[in-house]
Amino acid sequence: MAKGLLIVNTGDGKGKTTAALGQVFRALGHGFRICVIQFIKGSWKYGELEAGKQFPDQLEIHVMGRGFTWKSEDIDKDIKVAQEAWDFAKQVVLSNKYDLIVLDELTYLISYGMVAEEEVVNFLKLRPEKLHVVVTGRGASQSLMDAADLVTEMKDIKHPFAAGVKAQPGIEF
Amino acid sequence: MAKGLLIVNTGDGKGKTTAALGQVFRALGHGFRICVIQFIKGSWKYGELEAGKQFPDQLEIHVMGRGFTWKSEDIDKDIKVAQEAWDFAKQVVLSNKYDLIVLDELTYLISYGMVAEEEVVNFLKLRPEKLHVVVTGRGASQSLMDAADLVTEMKDIKHPFAAGVKAQPGIEF
Repeated sequence: MAKGLLIVNTGDGKGKTTAALGQVFRALGHGFRICVIQFIKGSWKYGELEAGKQFPDQLEIHVMGRGFTWKSEDIDKDIKVAQEAWDFAKQVVLSNKYDLIVLDELTYLISYGMVAEEEVVNFLKLRPEKLHVVVTGRGASQSLMDAADLVTEMKDIKHPFAAGVKAQPGIEF
Repeated sequence: MAKGLLIVNTGDGKGKTTAALGQVFRALGHGFRICVIQFIKGSWKYGELEAGKQFPDQLEIHVMGRGFTWKSEDIDKDIKVAQEAWDFAKQVVLSNKYDLIVLDELTYLISYGMVAEEEVVNFLKLRPEKLHVVVTGRGASQSLMDAADLVTEMKDIKHPFAAGVKAQPGIEF
């Protein structure tokens, strides 16, 4: 089997996590063992969590963090949670138990200075050779994109919430 | 239930169909009945076709067309196949049997002049009120984007094939 890819879905648009979901769906069909780590609580929604239950032997989803925001009242606690989440992700990457790992919203931890960019990028470069990793989140750093094999930018051209349309089950969550 | 959304995934990047796949995965978890129509043969790959079999009561996938290209040697036949595919899609949209319909690579039929843009856009505007429709493909026309509720552009920042990396099972197909 060829070398695993490092895939980055970034940009301000909506499709980043949704495309990662699609990647998971595709990989499930190949019998891949998959681990999803959500660095921000709530980024994976009811729909995918329910559908994922059809694949109990192949798909694990871990929710880390606690919904980081700039408004946090306890930044030290946030940093600690982020670092624990990243440590957990490293264990998962090194476990050799998976073919594909999704690090959903990982870029936020870097952007918010909660884990060091260099540490993340170097670690991902040295991941097990056959492991595919998908990283999502806005504002992927240049060094992360340089390390990646495939980088896609998702850009909102038109967004229904801007027009006052409510989020809808099955579509938005 | 609120009005269904018309979602367009366009741009030159890789995530268009993959994000639609993610949308399908999410919607499956909500118990949606889903119909996928591929206007270009091969755009939905082995992985998602296999994974989709876990949801036989909810998900139908129809492969239309025959891999349109500019190199076609029988353009009249191509146009006929495209128009039959579009007629089939219209029946599906009007059938009231689905909550979400994916019209994968539909934009190609418009770009190649195989079905009229105005006909497609007007038809989609008049779709059943609660039906969600996802259209994918490069070069979505302005009138299609105007009619849509949500438009995302996927842009390749970096692509592994450009660096000579081979397509891989579970990731590319």
